[in-house]
Amino acid sequence: MAEFSIIRDYCQGIGPQHHSTRIDIGDDAAVFEPPNDQDIAISTDTMVEGVHFLEGTPASHLAHKILSVNCSDMAAMGALPKYATMALTIPSVNTEWLAEFSSGLKAQAEHYQVQLIGGDTTNGNLTLSCTIIGLLDKSKVLSRRNAKLGDDVYVSGCVGDAALGLANLQGKIALEKSLETQVQMAHYRPQARVELGLGLLNIANACIDVSDGLVADLTHICHQSQLAMEINVDAIPVSAAYKSVFDLNSKQQMDFALYGGDDYELAFTVKPERRGEVKDLSKALGLPLSKIGSVTRSTSSSVCLRQGDNVLPAAKNLGFEHFTD
Amino acid sequence: MAEFSIIRDYCQGIGPQHHSTRIDIGDDAAVFEPPNDQDIAISTDTMVEGVHFLEGTPASHLAHKILSVNCSDMAAMGALPKYATMALTIPSVNTEWLAEFSSGLKAQAEHYQVQLIGGDTTNGNLTLSCTIIGLLDKSKVLSRRNAKLGDDVYVSGCVGDAALGLANLQGKIALEKSLETQVQMAHYRPQARVELGLGLLNIANACIDVSDGLVADLTHICHQSQLAMEINVDAIPVSAAYKSVFDLNSKQQMDFALYGGDDYELAFTVKPERRGEVKDLSKALGLPLSKIGSVTRSTSSSVCLRQGDNVLPAAKNLGFEHFTD
Repeated sequence: MAEFSIIRDYCQGIGPQHHSTRIDIGDDAAVFEPPNDQDIAISTDTMVEGVHFLEGTPASHLAHKILSVNCSDMAAMGALPKYATMALTIPSVNTEWLAEFSSGLKAQAEHYQVQLIGGDTTNGNLTLSCTIIGLLDKSKVLSRRNAKLGDDVYVSGCVGDAALGLANLQGKIALEKSLETQVQMAHYRPQARVELGLGLLNIANACIDVSDGLVADLTHICHQSQLAMEINVDAIPVSAAYKSVFDLNSKQQMDFALYGGDDYELAFTVKPERRGEVKDLSKALGLPLSKIGSVTRSTSSSVCLRQGDNVLPAAKNLGFEHFTD
Repeated sequence: MAEFSIIRDYCQGIGPQHHSTRIDIGDDAAVFEPPNDQDIAISTDTMVEGVHFLEGTPASHLAHKILSVNCSDMAAMGALPKYATMALTIPSVNTEWLAEFSSGLKAQAEHYQVQLIGGDTTNGNLTLSCTIIGLLDKSKVLSRRNAKLGDDVYVSGCVGDAALGLANLQGKIALEKSLETQVQMAHYRPQARVELGLGLLNIANACIDVSDGLVADLTHICHQSQLAMEINVDAIPVSAAYKSVFDLNSKQQMDFALYGGDDYELAFTVKPERRGEVKDLSKALGLPLSKIGSVTRSTSSSVCLRQGDNVLPAAKNLGFEHFTD
């Protein structure tokens, strides 16, 4: 089957047909009209089999995840995801796999109201590379660079389930069936917090999505804002499933939540005077937003983890890195 | 070495810093301000080692080619390339390779005046996936879909050298040293015809870049414009090097030019009344633009190849396909 047929059969008609789209899949490039009052946000995320996902991961989960991971980057900027292009590298033409991937992508594209306007199919090790394009209110942005001294630090939802799910899928941690499904789905099918990002655009100073791991991602904010943070480990939100697995008084129990990554929750900093607005937003979205610490002056360690009266030792590995020394 | 350091050390500061760029590499997404009178063109192209380029291809050639191939997609739309994101998948951290890639990318980014605003580095088989973003005059576009009955068909520059260069590199065709360099460079370091694309925006009806092979790419225009073409094989422009290799009276001699691909010249259709404008543009750019045929009514075969009084039989393989039946 030719590349051209793959694109036609499996990549066309995915997501809503936006009025602003002048040319979509099938030409040398896609063309769209940006609205006058919006800037353009753009980000690329790649997932490689064996590195970012386990071999044999169902195609529908991959479709779900690659789009969510990319929409999550838009959420972290306060942008509304609108268009996507997909570079799909596949080892062979498996029409069953392609059909499942395509239908999974369609469902998620509808969910996020993102139109697939470009596609490129190549032959090689299974690799998904998605570029997402979003709209952002002019002169506004959620950046990693704008945290202010004294800001409260928040994280949305719960963290740690995705890493726990991966450990379970890898056979490292056994779980009861009901918990197993929940944490595996947290790993396979994360949700991008797009509405939260849009809501935070007028409230938060700095924001990042939790992809590398909570501590690693907070460290990115610290480095780029040239500040530090004190985090209260006991305030970090974890799910009931997570709690039921670990003895919460043990020292290791928070490692998945602190260093695991792949959560795609938003971590953000807000001026303390705006706590009420955060509370209102949490209520409006039906999504817990937990205050987990404060922005402090820069010290030798960017993120200082406190548990009760103790300062936890800094972990060497700050989250998921694809390359190690 | 961490992904973060790779991006910082090898992907930052590549290309001009456009005033319209609000946020570049180092945040969850890049943000730029689109001008009010322009639309946005976007395209993704991926190159996989062993599929799109030979193992051991020098990193500087790869950097050159991935950016040229992407800028070529902008050229084919009549868009001005402005920003790029690069998803780089590498098997291991080879700092020498990365430095060579980075410096090659820098040179080409300056050449095309494209700013690298996003990067993603992952671990896996060597794969380069670039997304290019360009600006396009509002309500104008060069598309594959707008060829008109009776249009002249043109191609820029020469075709066939890149495929000849690949065959030479693969040891299939031996050449004299001086020719060898020329055709190998045509394969390794193609040039995107950006200025030609911009010039054609007011002249041509349809346009495509020659990446899959001249006949395959003309067939894309035919299919999408629901028309056909008659191409005069003797009018197809080939280089002096190409001519010196082949006996131009033999039947096979034009195969590289017709089916080889990777030329990144522009093929386009123009109303015959505008021949003078094409001539003027050719002169202004110092670039040959050769009339090679006409747009005809759709028949069973989209592209009919004529040589003198003969109609050449349709080739089964219409250019470079990554997947074959």
